[in-house]
Amino acid sequence: MFEQLGLIGCGLMGGSFALALKRAGLVRRVVGYSKSPLTLSRARALGVIDVEAPSALLAVSGADLVLLALPVAATEDTFKAVRHLLGAQALLMDVGSTKADVVAAARRTLGAHLPQFVPAHPIAGKEVAGIEHADADLYRGCQVILTPLPETAPQQSARAQQLWQALGAQVRLMDAQDHDAAYAAVSHLPHLLAFAAVNALGQQRAGRQWLELAGPGFRDFSRIAASDPVIWRDILQANAAEVLAQSRQFRAALDALEAAMQHSDGSALQKLIAHASALRSQWQPASGATAPDSIFAPCTKPPSSTCPP
Amino acid sequence: MFEQLGLIGCGLMGGSFALALKRAGLVRRVVGYSKSPLTLSRARALGVIDVEAPSALLAVSGADLVLLALPVAATEDTFKAVRHLLGAQALLMDVGSTKADVVAAARRTLGAHLPQFVPAHPIAGKEVAGIEHADADLYRGCQVILTPLPETAPQQSARAQQLWQALGAQVRLMDAQDHDAAYAAVSHLPHLLAFAAVNALGQQRAGRQWLELAGPGFRDFSRIAASDPVIWRDILQANAAEVLAQSRQFRAALDALEAAMQHSDGSALQKLIAHASALRSQWQPASGATAPDSIFAPCTKPPSSTCPP
Repeated sequence: MFEQLGLIGCGLMGGSFALALKRAGLVRRVVGYSKSPLTLSRARALGVIDVEAPSALLAVSGADLVLLALPVAATEDTFKAVRHLLGAQALLMDVGSTKADVVAAARRTLGAHLPQFVPAHPIAGKEVAGIEHADADLYRGCQVILTPLPETAPQQSARAQQLWQALGAQVRLMDAQDHDAAYAAVSHLPHLLAFAAVNALGQQRAGRQWLELAGPGFRDFSRIAASDPVIWRDILQANAAEVLAQSRQFRAALDALEAAMQHSDGSALQKLIAHASALRSQWQPASGATAPDSIFAPCTKPPSSTCPP
Repeated sequence: MFEQLGLIGCGLMGGSFALALKRAGLVRRVVGYSKSPLTLSRARALGVIDVEAPSALLAVSGADLVLLALPVAATEDTFKAVRHLLGAQALLMDVGSTKADVVAAARRTLGAHLPQFVPAHPIAGKEVAGIEHADADLYRGCQVILTPLPETAPQQSARAQQLWQALGAQVRLMDAQDHDAAYAAVSHLPHLLAFAAVNALGQQRAGRQWLELAGPGFRDFSRIAASDPVIWRDILQANAAEVLAQSRQFRAALDALEAAMQHSDGSALQKLIAHASALRSQWQPASGATAPDSIFAPCTKPPSSTCPP
């Protein structure tokens, strides 16, 4: 049980965390800060936060749990802004989709508070952003990757694990660099490709007309192209080297498919498609599980449709 | 009302058509043919077809409605195999995802029967193939593109429209070449990209491990990569020129995004993502509608989840 969550950033991710924590009865009070006054007052009107803080620093003041839920490039400045009032026992987390850059920012700024920081990346989201889409079930049944530093205090790392498990998530521990390599492949590159595919339609004269003809395949393939531009600008910049390396792998695989098409080599083409089809058919998204030994209240609701099996 | 549907190909598309027609009370008898005896007997056991035909020719014999539901490359040989017993009044359709090649095959083979052929492409499907996934609701609420030839008899074209509308689909008429250009952009290229993205993971040592970390974004983006290899080999080969042209457009859009990443040009990157995000957010899949003046029984059930709004 936490006394006070200091929530910095009141968007989909942060708002959903606050709602989930409240519903689970794991926090007494949520003090929120957003650089947008409109978002902040909306967060309070929606009951996501209890108190509007006039600054990030004041949201952190008195908090025993602090969550940064911001575009990743804002992490370093936010650490600088809040470190002076961060309580010595508070658990500090983020929810950024890249981890090596966030860890580097923490090392540069947190000083004696570094052991309190447990970098987190919940594998959840929607293609819509904003506090009005905050959902207490967003993290239920999803994976949450934690990338603690060697300096992270083991008891803070354990608290972070138990907290996410209490929200219905399945927790994995990883090295930050390994995390960034993996998510470049399974998340950041797919977003980049979806952005490119939609822009390719937009740049053609008939593109908008063609869009009217698109069906459920296009709908699902392109869903992530509707993601938030600032959040994804930051992710693609923070993890550019890994994403560009994955794009080279992708282009090689695309080249192979196109070569088979150009040479009318049906057998090679079928083999390449069969390989993709088999790999994708066998794949199952990781399902969440609640650790039975959680010190927090156990989850009883079934997984939501946000990340179904 | 049709007396007899001659169904050639008892997979997801053909089986769903037969089930939908039966449920709507629009056909008295379904005679099916599959080159796989196992599939054929399963189709009968599942009640999708009433009679097993020993050949495509015999499935067509006596039919006043004939549907080819095969990988598109099999169209020409099938036309040759069945034309001798095709009744003079029968309506002949296919469900292929490419249309110019199917029209060319019809011109080369159907002779005096050419006016009976109404090429059709229902924008429906699942990432799973096979008769066991046949679904009477597959076409409900979906678009069906018809690409009649100048030689197509207007009354056959009208029957085809009314038939698909009676199954709950929204019918559009298009030129076959225009169809292939549009679907290269909104369907065939997305499939090619999804195949390449999954193969890119498969070709890396850590790929399978990374897949365990993938979430709902990857799930939706890559769903179509699980599609049937033979069907998609044929589609990509039949429409290779258009698909390769769309891939060049896509690569140009990807180049622009990567250039912004390489130059750490956050403003350009954000602008490119914002363009994709806005275009995709505004997009809505076309919803089906039943024409009120259909001569067939009107549909009363709401659209299924197969191609939701």
